[in-house]
Amino acid sequence: MADKFLRAEIIAVGSELLDLGRVESNSIFLSQRLKSVGARVKRKWVVGDSPQEIETALKTALAASSDVIIFSGGLGPTTDDITRESVAQALGRPLQLDPAIIDDLKRRAAAFGLKLTDNNRRQAMVPKQAEVLDNPNGSAPGLYLQQDGALIFLLPGPPRELKPMTEDQVLDRIRRLKPAPQAVSRCLRLVGLAESQVDHQVEGIYKSYPEVETTILSSLGIIDLHFLWTGPDEPSRARQALDELVARVGEKLGSRVYSERDRELEEVVGEILRERGKMLATAESCTGGWISKRLTDVAGSSDYYLGGVVAYTNQLKVDLLGVNETTLERFGAVSPQTAEQMARGVRERTGADIGLAVTGIAGPGGGSAEKPVGLVHLGLSMNDDTQSRRLQVPGERRFVRLRTVRAALDWVRRSLL
Amino acid sequence: MADKFLRAEIIAVGSELLDLGRVESNSIFLSQRLKSVGARVKRKWVVGDSPQEIETALKTALAASSDVIIFSGGLGPTTDDITRESVAQALGRPLQLDPAIIDDLKRRAAAFGLKLTDNNRRQAMVPKQAEVLDNPNGSAPGLYLQQDGALIFLLPGPPRELKPMTEDQVLDRIRRLKPAPQAVSRCLRLVGLAESQVDHQVEGIYKSYPEVETTILSSLGIIDLHFLWTGPDEPSRARQALDELVARVGEKLGSRVYSERDRELEEVVGEILRERGKMLATAESCTGGWISKRLTDVAGSSDYYLGGVVAYTNQLKVDLLGVNETTLERFGAVSPQTAEQMARGVRERTGADIGLAVTGIAGPGGGSAEKPVGLVHLGLSMNDDTQSRRLQVPGERRFVRLRTVRAALDWVRRSLL
Repeated sequence: MADKFLRAEIIAVGSELLDLGRVESNSIFLSQRLKSVGARVKRKWVVGDSPQEIETALKTALAASSDVIIFSGGLGPTTDDITRESVAQALGRPLQLDPAIIDDLKRRAAAFGLKLTDNNRRQAMVPKQAEVLDNPNGSAPGLYLQQDGALIFLLPGPPRELKPMTEDQVLDRIRRLKPAPQAVSRCLRLVGLAESQVDHQVEGIYKSYPEVETTILSSLGIIDLHFLWTGPDEPSRARQALDELVARVGEKLGSRVYSERDRELEEVVGEILRERGKMLATAESCTGGWISKRLTDVAGSSDYYLGGVVAYTNQLKVDLLGVNETTLERFGAVSPQTAEQMARGVRERTGADIGLAVTGIAGPGGGSAEKPVGLVHLGLSMNDDTQSRRLQVPGERRFVRLRTVRAALDWVRRSLL
Repeated sequence: MADKFLRAEIIAVGSELLDLGRVESNSIFLSQRLKSVGARVKRKWVVGDSPQEIETALKTALAASSDVIIFSGGLGPTTDDITRESVAQALGRPLQLDPAIIDDLKRRAAAFGLKLTDNNRRQAMVPKQAEVLDNPNGSAPGLYLQQDGALIFLLPGPPRELKPMTEDQVLDRIRRLKPAPQAVSRCLRLVGLAESQVDHQVEGIYKSYPEVETTILSSLGIIDLHFLWTGPDEPSRARQALDELVARVGEKLGSRVYSERDRELEEVVGEILRERGKMLATAESCTGGWISKRLTDVAGSSDYYLGGVVAYTNQLKVDLLGVNETTLERFGAVSPQTAEQMARGVRERTGADIGLAVTGIAGPGGGSAEKPVGLVHLGLSMNDDTQSRRLQVPGERRFVRLRTVRAALDWVRRSLL
């Protein structure tokens, strides 16, 4: 199948991205946004602050007939910011001082009571036949130039500068100069099934759509099904086929699917709670506040979330949640009985409609033959009905906790459907 | 200054790393571990499942006289896993079936009641003159080969397979075949100062060590000072210089420095609490359980952390923490008075030695001219003494919350010094 999309490459510049454990994340944003103008990223580079490395990357990207080449980083005022100079040199374009940039930099410096240094002046150098991209969020202007049919953009590294510059000054230029079919894609996200189970259930469906590229990705309990139309450029046909495919797969997987976009579970749970007019409270032991943290990541979560208790010790389970001491002695802190009493206790003491509780053994210590690491009991109390569920989660502490958080949030979601 | 280190490149293979918003994180681990054998990563690539892209990356890496080239991903059983074939072809080495791998794959399949498929067999193909790297954690064996003086490793993509294979089978081969000076480096990590403040205070010191490369990195309230010895290969002299530099910088910055390694604040706080034999409890409003989550990220945190209350509403501040209703009416939920009563309340109700409280406006809504978004009051109650501190944190909701979590944890740390 021919790839009708534009070919894009991203070249991130910065020794700190190679050496110091920094994750390069601008390219994730750029890849997603480039899809909206029909460009697909085919190669990503991370190179140090070295003219040679920058030149090799640029020339290799040009040799691959890339339509769009985006540099990020290395436009700042310090001497190791060399993207501008290196690109100009690689393309044989002399740098010229742009008086408008100097004026702007002077204004910025004056606002801080500073004078312009020689280093600052470097930011005002513009390669021949390049356009300046304004940067309202920082001192480093971006640059745009064309070479051998490729559109080349030099963007500043800080995400809060790069993102608006991309939205306002990059995408539209690509759209105008290299019109391409916008990628038509869909996503289904679900929780609570293994990747192989999902694939087994739906491969019969997606394989009957040969013009759709299907990718199944799994990460710690969350499964994403990505569907990308790769057939001929007929947006209406693409949308129709994807709608049909998504509907069929969605029907097969039922309530396990929690979103038709890549949304976080806590957003979906919050939306349902708000719709139903229900207030939630939480009682956490092994997850230690993570469920609560996730719920309150969402702005406006006070509309449906009251708060709760982190009862990391048995004593707090008794004192703050009213768990029975005899229950703890007879069944232990990690038991269905304790989970149910925690859920009921937090619901009653906070006046919530729904009480959600978690108690388990996150590890690495604390496990036994009878109650191994990864054993978790969830409790859910609503409408005077309190239930519990048992999970056995594989993996290390962080994964046990994260999967438990997801399973707990998803239980609230499904109980409200 | 000459770079005496080995040159390494990392080539991550997988279309999902280009297209689907997945972060490539193996290279972060690899970069750190390669330093221990004197290799520094000079370029990172992410390429799709395309023989051409893989060949270009490999040949460009060889042309740059790389000493170590590490591929990650694309060794699985499915038809889009093509790293093995593409590397073999690029180097002109025919693939041969390895009967030992077939036997191993058969055993694995049988354990699941399955038979070997033709796709599985692809994992048993080994390029001529390559060595097989056992994979105790998955079905895809790794591969090792030499070409033009470079050591080339093909590693599986899943981190829980790649990491042990690196530790057990990659690093030692590099150490034996390409002995190099181990990078001597140090790190100081601190919280609560701006990057420019730190640089201003210490540049006079680090600039007097021209053989040390100093990098200052800042991320949401945490500042890392990295010092790397780049002088001649004399480990004892390197260590002496770095010890001296770190001591001088540490003295200048005082108690703001919380670690001489890249450790998380909650680990350091936990260590100090354990040493002092103190038990902590938390009362959180705007951070919604994040402080508690961070504290319990650390295994064994029940030694010094009891739990606490997430009081997202005023009513819960009254009911679960004993905050005075009159205080809430007169001063509001975001006030020093409320923060102090929350801290005292959680300490008294849990029997903890230390009560830590947070109340603030995380945004984007809820701010006013008098109490803007980002206004936070912290409360700390210990030894019958209760205090509060005011923060004004810039940025969006997530950053307000994260910086608050860090400031709160750091206050506990400094109050125990």
